[in-house]
Amino acid sequence: MSCDLKALATRGVQGLHPYEAGKPVEELERELGISNIIKLASNENPLGPSAKAIEAVEAAMSEAARYPDSSGFRLKQALRRHYGLEQEQLTLGNGSNDVLELIARAFLNPDDEVVFSEYAFAVYPIVTQACGAKAVVAPAHEYGHNLQAMAEAITERTRLIFIANPNNPTGTALQRDELVAFLDAVPESVIVVLDEAYTEYVTDTDFPDGLELLPNYANLVVTRTFSKAWGVAGLRVGFAAACADITDLLNRVRQPFNVSLLALAAAEAVLDDTDYLQKSVALNTSGLKYLEQGLTALGLGFIPSYGNFITVDMARPALPIFEALLREGVIVRPLGGYQMPDHLRVSIGLPEENERFLRALKQVLAC
Amino acid sequence: MSCDLKALATRGVQGLHPYEAGKPVEELERELGISNIIKLASNENPLGPSAKAIEAVEAAMSEAARYPDSSGFRLKQALRRHYGLEQEQLTLGNGSNDVLELIARAFLNPDDEVVFSEYAFAVYPIVTQACGAKAVVAPAHEYGHNLQAMAEAITERTRLIFIANPNNPTGTALQRDELVAFLDAVPESVIVVLDEAYTEYVTDTDFPDGLELLPNYANLVVTRTFSKAWGVAGLRVGFAAACADITDLLNRVRQPFNVSLLALAAAEAVLDDTDYLQKSVALNTSGLKYLEQGLTALGLGFIPSYGNFITVDMARPALPIFEALLREGVIVRPLGGYQMPDHLRVSIGLPEENERFLRALKQVLAC
Repeated sequence: MSCDLKALATRGVQGLHPYEAGKPVEELERELGISNIIKLASNENPLGPSAKAIEAVEAAMSEAARYPDSSGFRLKQALRRHYGLEQEQLTLGNGSNDVLELIARAFLNPDDEVVFSEYAFAVYPIVTQACGAKAVVAPAHEYGHNLQAMAEAITERTRLIFIANPNNPTGTALQRDELVAFLDAVPESVIVVLDEAYTEYVTDTDFPDGLELLPNYANLVVTRTFSKAWGVAGLRVGFAAACADITDLLNRVRQPFNVSLLALAAAEAVLDDTDYLQKSVALNTSGLKYLEQGLTALGLGFIPSYGNFITVDMARPALPIFEALLREGVIVRPLGGYQMPDHLRVSIGLPEENERFLRALKQVLAC
Repeated sequence: MSCDLKALATRGVQGLHPYEAGKPVEELERELGISNIIKLASNENPLGPSAKAIEAVEAAMSEAARYPDSSGFRLKQALRRHYGLEQEQLTLGNGSNDVLELIARAFLNPDDEVVFSEYAFAVYPIVTQACGAKAVVAPAHEYGHNLQAMAEAITERTRLIFIANPNNPTGTALQRDELVAFLDAVPESVIVVLDEAYTEYVTDTDFPDGLELLPNYANLVVTRTFSKAWGVAGLRVGFAAACADITDLLNRVRQPFNVSLLALAAAEAVLDDTDYLQKSVALNTSGLKYLEQGLTALGLGFIPSYGNFITVDMARPALPIFEALLREGVIVRPLGGYQMPDHLRVSIGLPEENERFLRALKQVLAC
């Protein structure tokens, strides 16, 4: 064909580089010819899914030939019980990635500006670029959000601001006072997205809860996911909470059956599983402490983390270390794509996984 | 707040009216205070999911805390075995709705034109509008696609053409010769999307197979779904097949984890379940024939259907009939939203469901 099909794409899509997902364990074992790999690369819940999620999925599976409930009625009722959120505030998504994308698509015209921090979640630049909008990257402060710099980056063209709290891939967090002061200062014509994917792991009592801030800010959207502490990343379900006007817009863009019947059932079930959540958070807290001590013992620095991962400063190019760990059967996440070539992000695993990682790292560094 | 948040949305989203999904049975039973409702409204497989799909989901559920394989490696291998499609031709979607949307987002700039037929699938105008593009509706011929009219609707601004074969909600089909002549005539700078959601139900041997046509047309995209004959609508999985250049663009826009781990596993499993597919198609063929005879006996006209549904001409406003059927516990689909206010679309059910529908319809018409 003489026609250049790629030239037919929108300008935004032509400039788009997709998110690079970690390879599935199965695929890596095949490629490397090794077995018993442990994956500490995608900030997943190492406990595996809650028994209640498994039970709910197995029960719902008999209905799998039917379309899911487009309105997500039952899950929204559960979210209401759990968080006090009303149906008119809720947009369900195929993971929080989906709602982040819906927000971008609802509000971004080509050439609108989107502000986010250096070292912030890779999905923000992707959804911005896909809409042909302009990413305005504010410099970080000690790898975390510099709200002063973000406020200064706002112009008349700014339509969206993405803030992750805690932040991925750095694990940094914003305290309540500084976040509130920032929200007070942002013009109400700019939508602020507060991505709280990791919020369940935070034990600090001074940590802000975006859902509590919602009544004060009509331009605030809070996103949450069931992929982290709730343990069903594979099922794809998350949500956005916002005022009714924003929610209406997001639901217009939403695919009618964007959340599967099994994901709806599992999310509804795990919300009632307080034991699972507490166990997940406790495991994370102790695992994080264990890794901090182990890394310190190895003479390595790290960014203090509020999430279910820790980002380690190798003080030299980290990609060879990532590759050496891989050969030891330990997958972690290199951060070259985040302009952090000397860092590796390591998810908190089960105690034996954390131990194996430290052992493998010690061995690799000794070579 | 004084700020008009809705005015901040893109022009396309401001003009968007979302797809109206049929209500879930459970919700209707609650609203109407009745039980034992049968749903013939969403063209689902009345057999329920294949035992192989159930088995695959239950096995995969142990991994549900992990993200799905972003590349869909195993499902793509299965699609290769089943259809001879290569990985570089495949884009997996959260249902075919997702790939239809990806196509629109990859190629549509505001004010680009999209051609589709009168009485075509509701998702085409929605994804067009969401991108701020302009829908150009070609008049139908006997409720089916009028390819002559569609060819004449092409202008220099046309970027996409959507064709459903068989068509939903009318059940009409295009024969191989006319489709090929149309594809030959379309400029190669216009992407033609051939939506074959219902193709597995077609028993006519002269019916075109879009996948076989792919090598001849670099601008052709064929979409398929696992929601109909494959029986896993609730799990959300479908795919697009196209040349490598188009596939690359679609995968750039695709959310990295758009298809759940369970949907990937179930789709892989059902592709091997030839018995289930044959049983589903045979049940549909006999049920369709049974309904045709029953409707004829009631003196009602219908559009000859190639799908798993039949669209009935009530020769008067159909909404009151829809509502009366609902009170009898039978849900069908009114087509007012498709500008077919005198028609009802009825999915082919199990033999006892088809019988119950005809009985209820006879009773309603006698009132």
